[in-house]
Amino acid sequence: MINQTMYQRGAESSVIREIFTYACERKEQIGAQNVFDFSLGNPSVPAPAAVRDSIEHSLAQLTSEQLHGYTPAPGLPATRAAVAASLNRRFGTTYAAKDVFMTVGAAASVSCSLHALVNPGEEVIVIAPFFPEYRVWIENAGAVCREVLADQETFQIDVAAVRDAITPNTAAVIIDSPNNPTGAVYTRENLEALAMVLSQANGAREQPIFLISDEPYREVVYGAEVPWVPSIYEHTVVCYSYSKSLSLPGERVGWILVPNTMPLADQIMPAVAGAARCLGFVCAPALFQRVVTDCVDEPADVEAYARNRETLTRALTEYGYTYVEPDGAFYLWVRALEDDAEAFCERARTFELLPVPSNSFGVPGWIRIGYCVSHETIERSLPAWKALADTYK
Amino acid sequence: MINQTMYQRGAESSVIREIFTYACERKEQIGAQNVFDFSLGNPSVPAPAAVRDSIEHSLAQLTSEQLHGYTPAPGLPATRAAVAASLNRRFGTTYAAKDVFMTVGAAASVSCSLHALVNPGEEVIVIAPFFPEYRVWIENAGAVCREVLADQETFQIDVAAVRDAITPNTAAVIIDSPNNPTGAVYTRENLEALAMVLSQANGAREQPIFLISDEPYREVVYGAEVPWVPSIYEHTVVCYSYSKSLSLPGERVGWILVPNTMPLADQIMPAVAGAARCLGFVCAPALFQRVVTDCVDEPADVEAYARNRETLTRALTEYGYTYVEPDGAFYLWVRALEDDAEAFCERARTFELLPVPSNSFGVPGWIRIGYCVSHETIERSLPAWKALADTYK
Repeated sequence: MINQTMYQRGAESSVIREIFTYACERKEQIGAQNVFDFSLGNPSVPAPAAVRDSIEHSLAQLTSEQLHGYTPAPGLPATRAAVAASLNRRFGTTYAAKDVFMTVGAAASVSCSLHALVNPGEEVIVIAPFFPEYRVWIENAGAVCREVLADQETFQIDVAAVRDAITPNTAAVIIDSPNNPTGAVYTRENLEALAMVLSQANGAREQPIFLISDEPYREVVYGAEVPWVPSIYEHTVVCYSYSKSLSLPGERVGWILVPNTMPLADQIMPAVAGAARCLGFVCAPALFQRVVTDCVDEPADVEAYARNRETLTRALTEYGYTYVEPDGAFYLWVRALEDDAEAFCERARTFELLPVPSNSFGVPGWIRIGYCVSHETIERSLPAWKALADTYK
Repeated sequence: MINQTMYQRGAESSVIREIFTYACERKEQIGAQNVFDFSLGNPSVPAPAAVRDSIEHSLAQLTSEQLHGYTPAPGLPATRAAVAASLNRRFGTTYAAKDVFMTVGAAASVSCSLHALVNPGEEVIVIAPFFPEYRVWIENAGAVCREVLADQETFQIDVAAVRDAITPNTAAVIIDSPNNPTGAVYTRENLEALAMVLSQANGAREQPIFLISDEPYREVVYGAEVPWVPSIYEHTVVCYSYSKSLSLPGERVGWILVPNTMPLADQIMPAVAGAARCLGFVCAPALFQRVVTDCVDEPADVEAYARNRETLTRALTEYGYTYVEPDGAFYLWVRALEDDAEAFCERARTFELLPVPSNSFGVPGWIRIGYCVSHETIERSLPAWKALADTYK
């Protein structure tokens, strides 16, 4: 028969995208303003004006072949150079264009990195709660997803638990900070402790444990420092996307950085290219590679998210909810008002509130509220959040 | 160590892309007009004006979120509907939007189709000479690439040879017509004979053999009929891309059609979605999905390719080359003037001629000339082709 693994992955679909689809249908039924869709990380903040300027400039200046032709598989040289230069300015590094591989967004970045770094049968550690697609991509690479619970007070990495989870079969650890779904930003101390544990484990091994630092939310941060991970642990590959920082999630453009300071960089970059080739990626979308070249230093507009965060957390506190104070990203990780997060979300749905239950993130009893919606949606949803809490009193 | 399969795939790279890279470097050295790069299928014909109009219209009319936000994983409903309606107008079919899955180009289409339809250990038949990446994607799906030589006179499918190659393990056959690299267009009789052989084999099997019809060159044809394959064999999935017809290869947009006439469509479409998810595709680039909606019936401009074909074939005939008369695509399949096609291409390179040797297409002794270049490049290259032939006299 057809491939049942793929059938299952398609039939189960992503819980997040299922709620998103329900929200679209429900909006048709009762009006968009009456449905509070907190499911997807679809930024409500518009792309900066520089994005439109870049597209218009390219359309005016370039031939069709320059604009829309194949780019080299790793990306346009100018784009790769612009990304490297931007990182160097910000982190005091000395990366070159050749260290950057342009991808079809963060999903492609993580999927290709896993295929490049991990062999079938090996284990990859994720910090729970974690972005549910990590498991899908890890298992598609033939590897085993090993969940390690974050510190349940701070939602920092529980480094001792990571140490206990490492086996001779551990190939890699995936982290994302600012974190989806908790909004936690891993501190320098936390990352240094992780690096120490990994380095100690490496001493007894032929190959190092790789760290995959997935950073689509790097720029979405409310004052906290987001340390540059490769400067803390040398065996780090960085995955990035412009979905959040430039509000371009549908355009699918991001990159993988294989730092030239990484001992195995000369082997890893070809493996990344090989993975992209094998999976069916040919190049990142050409027009938006040029947008990246032009907009690489555009500041992310986080003010709108900061305002949403402020309004939402103040109100939820008043209504009796508890949550993790988010330092970054645009998700609020809220304790469900009953043990069963899915039942809680079912009840929330009767108030037209659509958060995501925590089960698919690998832990029970929480919900994720994506507050990357309009401020008006936040404000209009508040009575519903209050009424929902009241049903538990 | 890191994944050696991926490393090899990256280190070996695609021969075609390697020549393309050499061409770029060589152009820097001696001037673009002095290098005759026939390697890549990068259309020299500009995208139709309607593409630019569509982009400008979207930029003017839509909000950033509508423009650049995530689309549903299978694509924008309007885009899927437009594709289905276009097919229905042209082929008298009754497809619906739900039968179309928008992809990140033809490579993604074929890769996802293979993952959806084929199980590890099964066999997939390709018709040699064949597009070299088929083997890469087949093997990445854990399957075995089984080469069947095309009829060496006509380069139609050798149906008897396909019949002999079918085993109980055969899961699928990939065809592409108009063919890359030979330019052959499979006749209706040829496809009907193939359908007969597959149907006969299906009688003794629990599951049908699937046909994957990869059709990026459907519109690039010089008068020949390109039959609609699902009307000839019901277990056919169609893969398409706008790389060639709209000259948008760098933008990565195409689709998979799972026809509603296909007996297992209800299982295959979720499997396609699951494969896209597992491999790390989130959605096709949003802005170019809208371009497809607007430009779905834009005629491909094949006149320039027809003129190139005419000039090139007339001259090569005069110089003593023999080749397959191409009915479609923009490749000329020419017999090398010595048995070793790679040695022949090495010698061609001394005349700044850069065709692709046939070895990576699964057969020895031929070269592929991509004549999707400018007419001027064709004309300027003719003395070099003559001089090259003269060295063999």
